[in-house]
Amino acid sequence: MTARAQERESPALPPAPPLAAAELDRVRGAVSAALTGFLDVQRETLAGMDPVLVPVADEVRALADGGKRLRPLFAYWGWRGVRPEGPGEDDDAVLRAVAALEFVHASALVHDDVMDGALTRRGRPATHVGFAARHCDGRLAGDGEAFGIGSAILVGDLALVWSDELLRRSGLSTAALSRARAVWDTMRTEVTAGQYLDLLRAAGGLPGPQGALTVARYKSAGYTVQRPLQLGAAIAGAGERAAEVYTAIGLPLGEAFQLRDDVLGVFGDPAVTGKSADDDLREGKQTLLIALAEEAADATGRRLLAGSLGDPDADAADLDALRDLLETTGARARVEERIAERTALARTAIAGAPIAADARAALDALAVAATTRTA
Amino acid sequence: MTARAQERESPALPPAPPLAAAELDRVRGAVSAALTGFLDVQRETLAGMDPVLVPVADEVRALADGGKRLRPLFAYWGWRGVRPEGPGEDDDAVLRAVAALEFVHASALVHDDVMDGALTRRGRPATHVGFAARHCDGRLAGDGEAFGIGSAILVGDLALVWSDELLRRSGLSTAALSRARAVWDTMRTEVTAGQYLDLLRAAGGLPGPQGALTVARYKSAGYTVQRPLQLGAAIAGAGERAAEVYTAIGLPLGEAFQLRDDVLGVFGDPAVTGKSADDDLREGKQTLLIALAEEAADATGRRLLAGSLGDPDADAADLDALRDLLETTGARARVEERIAERTALARTAIAGAPIAADARAALDALAVAATTRTA
Repeated sequence: MTARAQERESPALPPAPPLAAAELDRVRGAVSAALTGFLDVQRETLAGMDPVLVPVADEVRALADGGKRLRPLFAYWGWRGVRPEGPGEDDDAVLRAVAALEFVHASALVHDDVMDGALTRRGRPATHVGFAARHCDGRLAGDGEAFGIGSAILVGDLALVWSDELLRRSGLSTAALSRARAVWDTMRTEVTAGQYLDLLRAAGGLPGPQGALTVARYKSAGYTVQRPLQLGAAIAGAGERAAEVYTAIGLPLGEAFQLRDDVLGVFGDPAVTGKSADDDLREGKQTLLIALAEEAADATGRRLLAGSLGDPDADAADLDALRDLLETTGARARVEERIAERTALARTAIAGAPIAADARAALDALAVAATTRTA
Repeated sequence: MTARAQERESPALPPAPPLAAAELDRVRGAVSAALTGFLDVQRETLAGMDPVLVPVADEVRALADGGKRLRPLFAYWGWRGVRPEGPGEDDDAVLRAVAALEFVHASALVHDDVMDGALTRRGRPATHVGFAARHCDGRLAGDGEAFGIGSAILVGDLALVWSDELLRRSGLSTAALSRARAVWDTMRTEVTAGQYLDLLRAAGGLPGPQGALTVARYKSAGYTVQRPLQLGAAIAGAGERAAEVYTAIGLPLGEAFQLRDDVLGVFGDPAVTGKSADDDLREGKQTLLIALAEEAADATGRRLLAGSLGDPDADAADLDALRDLLETTGARARVEERIAERTALARTAIAGAPIAADARAALDALAVAATTRTA
């Protein structure tokens, strides 16, 4: 179905060109180095205030250590696509500026994990769980769980504050910084609002497939692809036209990315994704996949959804029955079709975008990687 | 005791000059107008994303509605004290920029209330309580308390993000903005770290009077007075010397302000403060007042502290016994003495500061008001 849909939607599109892996790795490496350098300074600052603050700095470091660096990659190539001829912003400064997106993301993840009551994040204890354990190990007084949650709220706040500071210290020209901040502010308002929409949806507000797409629009599509690309364009000083081109690429691609995430959360191979394929179902995550299944299910299917979805004690048989339902209702196929269609839209926009050829190739490769990934 | 201490420490200081109330009110009014104008735009933006987001914008507005505007006042007069002769930053732009401090504060209050499990804030339900009620009223699904906490985390995040945006849109020159942001970043790291120190202290880490003073240093003194004053100096483009003068004023004054807060939290008149004088004791707030009493108490006093302090079910007799202990151990008198001493230090620094005369008068009046207030 995926292949057929892709064929239908984008008959003229070639397979993604092999991306210069070295160039991708260079960007990822520079982002990591920017984060490390910044965090070394902050750790010293916190230690100077009081040595008990060092674990807070170390937690932000651990959070910033993982991840695919997708947002910085989109922002960097967004810049490369439209940067003006002649001397412009320094490449290293741009890399540091886009690295700041990783702190925004770290903040969102920590606060998200508190809200979801998640236990782990990227193979280590979620921040609130880790600090609750620290409370226990240190034989501290009072409620360890509350201490963990309070600490996680503050770690997330600090990551958010540090995102601004890294952007400011990036070395971008004052003019580029000022342009970048307009997109930056929009992005941060949108993602925070998107998280609230997600919370509301989990509580039954914003129902149906349309609700799922609204959440994905702000929490993922804008935040993961569209706004990072536009951040790059703003750094380059490109005008309204570039912002529109990047919207045409970013919104469908970002949605496809989120839908791929939803599918992997239920059908992914835990050995590859690094996370259980049961958590999203046990948590009752209200993805488009689920919304489509709810719409298409018969009475038996609806009973199954009402009984097992979001049941933390659901056993393997319950979860397999849910997965079967996602298949038999056609929900999975419809989501795959939508991923293929949105990806094709984005790739068509990339192919026609008036941007530098190397950026076009990089963005196309990123588009394919983000939507066909298995992890 | 207070009067004696004040006499000893500041024999030469006159009583505070009557501050031009109109000028104070003008600043407060301009801060409120800046917040309202900004929030009107943000409310439209959120409503345009999805109308269900309007209550989030309205909650930030309600939070920004109250308060003494102390931080903007210090920042404004910090600027007035050292602004250069001739055309400089626009007065209205400075007022909008310093108003942004109120969003930083709103964010801190919302997250603090989640951490403390507070029920009310300035006479209305704390944000997490209000959104839990909204969950109930809207007959939403799942755990209402968790919904309230998640919403409050996001409302606080949004206020933090909007603090940056208001600063950026204030109309300050690019150069002034860039200078201001360095202080801004320092301040936000310090206050977040200070809140973690407070959390750790509540759990028994950072013990004793010294621990209480460390928390007050970062969570209050830097954040409430020193950094706002320095923010004003940075906007003015004043150099290192001005920053030092403002530290000499801000740290003792900010500490005195916090200690006055601690005393009012236990001995204040609820009809004037607008909050119960029992909450801090029932919550077991680890103020300097308590730390000094713990140090000076005999075995009976220590048993009383261990038994009643932080007991949410403590009755009026228990709380009166605790208040008696704070008196008989001399803890209250020592704190009053320290408030007088710190206030005198700050006022001496103000009197000798090489700043504009009207700013000197305003800061002195603010110093007296912040440390002798009854609410």
